[in-house]
Amino acid sequence: MRPGLVIPFRRESAPATPAEVRPLDRWLGRHLQGTLAPVHVGLRLWDDGPAGECREPIGELVVGDRRTLVGLIVHPELYFGETYTSGRLHVRGELGRVVEALSRIRTPSTPSLIERLGLWLTPANSERAARRNIHHHYDLSNDFYQRWLDPDLVYTCACYPHPGATLEEAQAQKLDLVCRKLGLRPGETVVEAGCGWGALALYMARHYGARVKAFNISTEQLAFARERAVRERLTDRVEFIEDDYRSITGRFDVFVSVGMLEHVGRRRLDAMARVLRRTIDPHRGRGLLHFIGRDHPRLLNAWIRRRIFPGGYAPSLAEVIARVLEPADLSVLDVENLRLHYARTLSDWRARFSAAEPEVARHFGEAFCRAWRLYLAGSEASFTTGWLQLFQVVFAPAGGTAIHWLRPSHAGPARSARAAV
Amino acid sequence: MRPGLVIPFRRESAPATPAEVRPLDRWLGRHLQGTLAPVHVGLRLWDDGPAGECREPIGELVVGDRRTLVGLIVHPELYFGETYTSGRLHVRGELGRVVEALSRIRTPSTPSLIERLGLWLTPANSERAARRNIHHHYDLSNDFYQRWLDPDLVYTCACYPHPGATLEEAQAQKLDLVCRKLGLRPGETVVEAGCGWGALALYMARHYGARVKAFNISTEQLAFARERAVRERLTDRVEFIEDDYRSITGRFDVFVSVGMLEHVGRRRLDAMARVLRRTIDPHRGRGLLHFIGRDHPRLLNAWIRRRIFPGGYAPSLAEVIARVLEPADLSVLDVENLRLHYARTLSDWRARFSAAEPEVARHFGEAFCRAWRLYLAGSEASFTTGWLQLFQVVFAPAGGTAIHWLRPSHAGPARSARAAV
Repeated sequence: MRPGLVIPFRRESAPATPAEVRPLDRWLGRHLQGTLAPVHVGLRLWDDGPAGECREPIGELVVGDRRTLVGLIVHPELYFGETYTSGRLHVRGELGRVVEALSRIRTPSTPSLIERLGLWLTPANSERAARRNIHHHYDLSNDFYQRWLDPDLVYTCACYPHPGATLEEAQAQKLDLVCRKLGLRPGETVVEAGCGWGALALYMARHYGARVKAFNISTEQLAFARERAVRERLTDRVEFIEDDYRSITGRFDVFVSVGMLEHVGRRRLDAMARVLRRTIDPHRGRGLLHFIGRDHPRLLNAWIRRRIFPGGYAPSLAEVIARVLEPADLSVLDVENLRLHYARTLSDWRARFSAAEPEVARHFGEAFCRAWRLYLAGSEASFTTGWLQLFQVVFAPAGGTAIHWLRPSHAGPARSARAAV
Repeated sequence: MRPGLVIPFRRESAPATPAEVRPLDRWLGRHLQGTLAPVHVGLRLWDDGPAGECREPIGELVVGDRRTLVGLIVHPELYFGETYTSGRLHVRGELGRVVEALSRIRTPSTPSLIERLGLWLTPANSERAARRNIHHHYDLSNDFYQRWLDPDLVYTCACYPHPGATLEEAQAQKLDLVCRKLGLRPGETVVEAGCGWGALALYMARHYGARVKAFNISTEQLAFARERAVRERLTDRVEFIEDDYRSITGRFDVFVSVGMLEHVGRRRLDAMARVLRRTIDPHRGRGLLHFIGRDHPRLLNAWIRRRIFPGGYAPSLAEVIARVLEPADLSVLDVENLRLHYARTLSDWRARFSAAEPEVARHFGEAFCRAWRLYLAGSEASFTTGWLQLFQVVFAPAGGTAIHWLRPSHAGPARSARAAV
């Protein structure tokens, strides 16, 4: 899953002469400040007066009008994003720190009954809806992403070999880690579901001699990936195909999907199971899913679903095992949770995005910039505080023989010791 | 889970004058040979004549009488073990190879409706039943286990640092791997649920300076473990407690359980969830479960349940995550499947058991020896062919900070780089 183009916002600004602050507003403000005070976030109303008591605030929310105040009380998950984007809510202090503090108001524990009901009401992603959702995200402009991603345009969690590593080093490490976890060998066939700008497919062909078929439904990304394959003379080994993951046919030694499962949706996990069952070679095959996940089944943040990832769903690890891998008779070999690495990746993206903001604002406007700033800061906070997880799961057909005798080390080169059962 | 004393067998031998082989017997024999032929196992009836055609047999089953033949057709899972133990079924060829071939008749795919119904009919393990089951297994005689386990009496899957490693090296590697995966530090408190003969608890205290409370309900094992703690002057850091895992109270930095979850039973996974929730420190705590698991929820082999592990259940990975970790608000950090290492461990145990057989037979009789020989060979085959898995799962409270920045390598020393979120 990678952030993408948001649905265009209605441009709004705070009214020129804000309404008077009435006693009811003060009462609501005190109530809201009571919720925020334990995480040290202050609150001010539109007269710029403090809404209540807050000791040692690390930052402040400044509410621009009554509608914003009510929205933040009634449905904070949605209206924080909506009003921050439209400029009716201001954040004083470092946005990342404030958003992280807000994520700590609740701990990511067992979902409430209402949250669980919400799960049942999410619609399924048809191929058409998937295409619409993906176009919204990824077909804005390659130029936009080039301004703040690494040069390979890897738009998923990196893996930092040491805390001082750069984003470029960490993305290269991640690509190689995926290949090593899969035990990829020269001449093997790979199918990739959701290939982004093609970095992993090209890496597998270049460094491991694999033959890769890479699927994607984002036209812009594919154009970039194909051009790169031509430039790097890898067209004989990498084929980029514009089609839905559900259209994948044929048998492969390796199935890989990095940051795409989140776009499948909760109601279509069975479709992914069918794809895995028919594409992975039953004897020597294996696969890897890299995805944003959860500790419990719960919907994505309401604002993120509305503005950033329509149709998106970050599944729990148990859901992926029970609903994708078990029905496909696949055995889990290895799971790694890289959530701290995603927090760090997002921190690096945020710094670069921040530097690119003037340019981005010129092209897409202030509201777009604010939405993206919040989206990146909120995602970083979610990985830091444990609301989101990043799982890499390696699997193979039950009883298959292509399994590692020893887990490939992170740091070292690919181990060749493999056991033939 | 560790094998243990089987329930005493009725001693039986083949009747002195076996009945005549009738046309119906031949017909049934041909039917059974038809099932065995694809995996190259031959079949002979009690007149020592081949029951049907089998090309290039790797071994042969010799059926001693009609009852055995019918049993093998009606309920092979149960009666193979029953009749092999009583001597009414002989195996010609290497037992391990033959049993492995038989495990390949079916692949470990999605359970049938009948298998799933069986899951619902298993009774729950009360504390009293647990005590009875565990005494049956582990309170026979420490001397028996000392004849064929490593000197530390580690009765769970080892981890071989390289294919040529000895059992002793691999068990030491496993104990250290558990400590490294947990990032254990001096002075930290550990609770161990099901400590066997105490090897891990003593290792953690000796090599990592941890303070360990270790629970077990096997009297014989505890006597051994306590004596060893006194001899090694570790009584100030390790306390062995004779009590059920459900009685664990207090908060600890680390929860660990190696080879015990299989004794909890499917209907008591929620009890384990409650123990985890109340014992792991919500901020700096973490835990590790090491258990025999499955790709799908299914009962243990019927003979194993009857003779070797009454009350035992090897849960699927998804069951453990959804029914033990999720309700306790624990986040999965790392999963490793070591099934090939358990196959290798069992192969090493088998070789040692084989050498000890004359002694064991003198003490416990021939039937006991045959049952154990089959139990060890069958387990090795199950891990080799993927009917059984061995999972090590590391977890921490959702949003907790005691999580590794980088996965500790298998081979190297403990990494100290840890991230404070």
